[in-house]
Order: sequence, then C-alpha cells, then structure tokens
Amino acid sequence: MSSDGPHATAPGGVRRPLIGIDLGGTKVQGVLVDHGTVVGDAKVATPMGGVADVVAAVVECVGRLGGAGSVDGVGIGAAGVIDAATGTLLQAPNLAGFDRPVPLAALLGDALELPSSTPLVVDNDVNAAVVGEHRLGAARGFDNVLGVWVGTGVGGGIVLDGRLRRGPAGGAGEIGHVGVVVDGGRQCRCGLFGHLESYAGRASMEAEARRRHDAGTPTLLVEMAGRKRMKSSVFAKALEAGDEVALDLLDEAVQALGMALAAAATLVDLEVVVVGGGVPGKLGSRFVGRVEQAVRTRLFVRPSPLRVVPATLGDLAGALGAALLAAPAGGVVAPQ
Amino acid sequence: MSSDGPHATAPGGVRRPLIGIDLGGTKVQGVLVDHGTVVGDAKVATPMGGVADVVAAVVECVGRLGGAGSVDGVGIGAAGVIDAATGTLLQAPNLAGFDRPVPLAALLGDALELPSSTPLVVDNDVNAAVVGEHRLGAARGFDNVLGVWVGTGVGGGIVLDGRLRRGPAGGAGEIGHVGVVVDGGRQCRCGLFGHLESYAGRASMEAEARRRHDAGTPTLLVEMAGRKRMKSSVFAKALEAGDEVALDLLDEAVQALGMALAAAATLVDLEVVVVGGGVPGKLGSRFVGRVEQAVRTRLFVRPSPLRVVPATLGDLAGALGAALLAAPAGGVVAPQ
Repeated sequence: MSSDGPHATAPGGVRRPLIGIDLGGTKVQGVLVDHGTVVGDAKVATPMGGVADVVAAVVECVGRLGGAGSVDGVGIGAAGVIDAATGTLLQAPNLAGFDRPVPLAALLGDALELPSSTPLVVDNDVNAAVVGEHRLGAARGFDNVLGVWVGTGVGGGIVLDGRLRRGPAGGAGEIGHVGVVVDGGRQCRCGLFGHLESYAGRASMEAEARRRHDAGTPTLLVEMAGRKRMKSSVFAKALEAGDEVALDLLDEAVQALGMALAAAATLVDLEVVVVGGGVPGKLGSRFVGRVEQAVRTRLFVRPSPLRVVPATLGDLAGALGAALLAAPAGGVVAPQ
Repeated sequence: MSSDGPHATAPGGVRRPLIGIDLGGTKVQGVLVDHGTVVGDAKVATPMGGVADVVAAVVECVGRLGGAGSVDGVGIGAAGVIDAATGTLLQAPNLAGFDRPVPLAALLGDALELPSSTPLVVDNDVNAAVVGEHRLGAARGFDNVLGVWVGTGVGGGIVLDGRLRRGPAGGAGEIGHVGVVVDGGRQCRCGLFGHLESYAGRASMEAEARRRHDAGTPTLLVEMAGRKRMKSSVFAKALEAGDEVALDLLDEAVQALGMALAAAATLVDLEVVVVGGGVPGKLGSRFVGRVEQAVRTRLFVRPSPLRVVPATLGDLAGALGAALLAAPAGGVVAPQ
C-alpha cells in the first residue's frame, strides 16, 4: 500500500479533493474527501420524478460540496446493476425512471460541465462501500477482503490482491445470491431459491416471520411492526425479548451467512470479511461475532487467520468509497 | 494474451524448452514442452521408500527428458498442500515420507544441479493442471476460469484476470471443501461435514454406496467392485445398467457440483468452468453436460454466458501446466 495521499499521481502534482455520492432510493448522500479524510458532506432527498430530477439532485448535492470544478474526480455509488465501464445503470429498481438502462455517467458529465480530464466513475453502491472499508475502514491494511452488506437484501463486493474485482461481466461479489440450500429452500427476491439473501436479508426475514405468524405461531415481530415495514430495530427488540420466531430466524441467518462466507473464503482465500448494513448495525457486534463463529467452524484451513469484523465507516462508507474510486491514480489511493 | 511463444521474455532472446513434472502417488509423469507443444514425455513409477527415493525418481524422469541443463525452467505439480513461495510440500499424504514438511524445491535444485538462474517451481498438481487447461486446453482464450478436478477427492484451481490465484495463505481454489449443506450432511475426508467432495468425490461416493448396500439396498456398484476400490469405470457400468443407487449418487454429485460451481461463478464472475479428473473422464461428456445444466439453473445472472466444459489435455494437463508455471517470463506464457 502506498503511503502517499489519496491521489498521489494527479497530473501536475496538485492534489485536489474528490467528491463521492451515494445515490440511494431515499437520499443522495455526498462527501468531499481530501487526502483520505471527509472534509464536507451534504444530503439531498432522492426525487421521485424521473431521471432528469435524479440527475438534478446529484448536481445540487455536488454544488453544496463546492461544485465539480475544483475536484480531481467525482464518484457515484448507486444501488442497482451497473456497467462500470460505461457508467450505465442497467437496472436500479429503487430509482424512479431507472427501469431501463440510463447512461448516468454521460448525463452527469454534461450536467456537471465536467472537464473531460476529470474522472467520473459510476459503480455499484456496495462495491463503493467495500472500497471505503478496504481503504479507510475496518479492512484497512488487508488486500483480500469480502464485504457483505446485510440490509433489505444482501449485497457484496470483493477486493483481491488490493483491487476491487468487477469480473468480466461486472457481476463479481454478489454473495447474496450464493446458494445455501442444495435443493429448494426459501424463494429469493431474484426469483431463484435457497440463496443467502432469502435467509439473511431483512425483507425475506420479514416475509418468513409474517408467514409463520399467519400459520399460527405468533411473534412479537409482527405484533410490533403491525402492517408497517419490519425494521431492523424491531428485530433487535424481539430478540432482546426472547421471541422464539425472531431467535430462530436469526439463527438461520447466521448459519446461512456462515456457509456462504466460508465458501467465499475457501474459494478465493480471504483475510477479512467486513459485515455492514442496517441489520448488523442494529443488532450490534454480537451478531458479527456469531457470524464469525459460524464461518470458522466451516473453514477447511484450521486454525484460520480469517477475521469477520463489523464495518466502521457507517452511513458514509458508500459515498467515501465512491470518491476513492474516482481518484485519478486509478487504484493508487491510500490514506495519509 | 500475448501471441509470442511460451517464454517470450527469456533472457538473451534464446527460447529453450521447459520441463514439467506431475508428481503423483503412483507415477512421476514428465513432459518436455517447446513453444507450448509437448515434444517429449517420460514416466517413472513413484517409489515408496521415502523422500530421497522420490527425489531420485524425479531426477531420473528429468534425465529421460534430456536433463535440466538445456531447459529454461522446471515445474513440479504435486498432490498435496504446497507453500508455492518456498517450494515446500507441507502435506502430501500420497507420497511416502512426506508426512512432514519437505523442502522439495531446495532438494531438487541440488539434486538436478540446477543453475540458480533457472526457475524451479513447485505447486499443487491441480493448480498446475488448471494452468495447463487455461493456457493450452479447454479454457484457452478465457481469463476467468475455475478448474474442478473430480477424482478420489475433488480439487480445484482458479485463474482470475489471466493469472493463477494462490491467495494470501496459498489456499485459493479449494472448491472441494465448499459446503453444499448448511447443517450436517455427509462427512468429508477433511473431517468437516457437507462439503462438495463428500458428494462428488469418488471415495465418498464409494463409502456411501457401501453404506447403502450394507443397510439393505443392494447395488451393482458393490457387487462389481467387491472388496476392491470402486473405480470410476465401475460407476460408469452401474449407471449404464440403470442401477438405482448409482443413479441416485450421481444425481447428488451433479447437484452438489451445480451448487458449488454456481456459488463460485456468482462470487467472482467466471467465464468458463473446466471439469477434469477420473470421474468425468470415465462418465463422458454427458456428465459435464448435466453439471452445466445444474449450474445454469442456479445462476443469478440469466441468461449467463458461463460455460462448463470437459478438460481436453487428459493425463498430461498437470505436467504441461507445471512446465508453463516454470517459464521465466513469470506468467507471460502463451501458445504460438
């Protein structure tokens, strides 16, 4: 790892800040990053009116951070399927108007009046968050890292030999859609069955809790959530109260994570797994400790030096990582 | 991929052949490789007398190929756990005297009187075979390849962005020890439960066939094999005869392979999976076709361009790949 600043090879030797944007379904979170440190942040609600409105919201967020004219690069992490090579969002179900491919990098380049020499990078939001944790967070100092983000769904990103792996079709890191049941199992939101996400994603856990409740096993989860979304905080409270269904669903989530993460570690040989997202955020470090235990008991190489650790950058990981992805050095980015 | 010869950057511009050795429990298989073509081969029985005898057998094999003095590198692929950085066999249960770490590269360097400028590489035999198939066999032209070798056990090797991945602890590619059952399952030869190898490895399939036979479900597998090793050819005959146990065990093997290979493809994004080893060799291309189908139905990205193909280099893949690993160019090796 270089000990220089975050954009050590910027032309002319002048190192200017980077802007990173985490473009989500509810908010556009921006950060201004200087030498690996967040020196400013801005938040704009994600508009529901369509592509032009979303582009305008990103432009506004960049404006609040001082504008694109005085930075060395702009990075966007967006929830969805991305073609990072062209900066196109192929599919982004959480963004209004993005139900068809949108050439976001091209649209933003024009709207921001970005000089062609300033990099504009669009990548998946979880890839960006994993890059953030790798460079500046929980996985700092390690070069072989899997990040798993457990929220409504389960996303992932993978860093091998110090570099974010995208893969030939841009699909690398999709740990949520690794199977944990050989035949059948719960249906995943992607349509297939028995995937990690069907056991560890909040939405799938909610659906299963409601199914069991309706089938005659009452649970605090449904009693507390009512007809509203069953938030991670509801799971945390039900677990504290010793609710049987909540305990059982959490066990299944932990074992499914143990199996999928052990498979990843066995296949590519990892040093660290970083667990982030809303579910571990609400359930606390004990959850990550249980996942680590579930991984360790399944590892072929024993004793293994593999660690499973909680993410440390919180809600800014995605925006921060997006900024680092836009550094002109093209990968040579490190904190001071 | 370079279009130059197999060791294009050899010092002085002189390109000499390479020697590759596949060091197995029953035979030492050597090849002489010139510009990506096998121009000679030699075979010596693996002695049972201990480390010195094994080293002598390798020296004899190298001698039959013209000796180490006129080649640009010597590569060894050995069945076992290898520290490729130092060329040490940490564990090689099939080689007499190798029940403790053996510094094979150092011993062979002395015994072969190899100039220090001539590379001597020791790696895992499956890694070597996968490199062979990647450079010159079934995966030629692709840069993101998983090789899975189905024999007594199940081994693997992984090439990402054109390079064999070893991983920080040297453990990458161990697809045989990826779990396919979330809780419990058949015990694997490694001691853990529910691994791919416990369903698709010949030894585990044999153990399960005998268990079912003893428990009152007679099978041709046991009737044909008697007390001898249940060879892959016995499986092939029992399947042809429609034996229920054989059909069931094969189904389980195919589904387990489908699950583990789909997990690998989902995690790192692969272009090709090459299936080699004794079991697919005897069961024919229909087996690989069934595995491809089992993988495809589990892939998150659909339709996927991923292909599952049989290995094409046969018994020489390991020796050939070992030779390529020893090319002085350090990875810049391609056929003419």
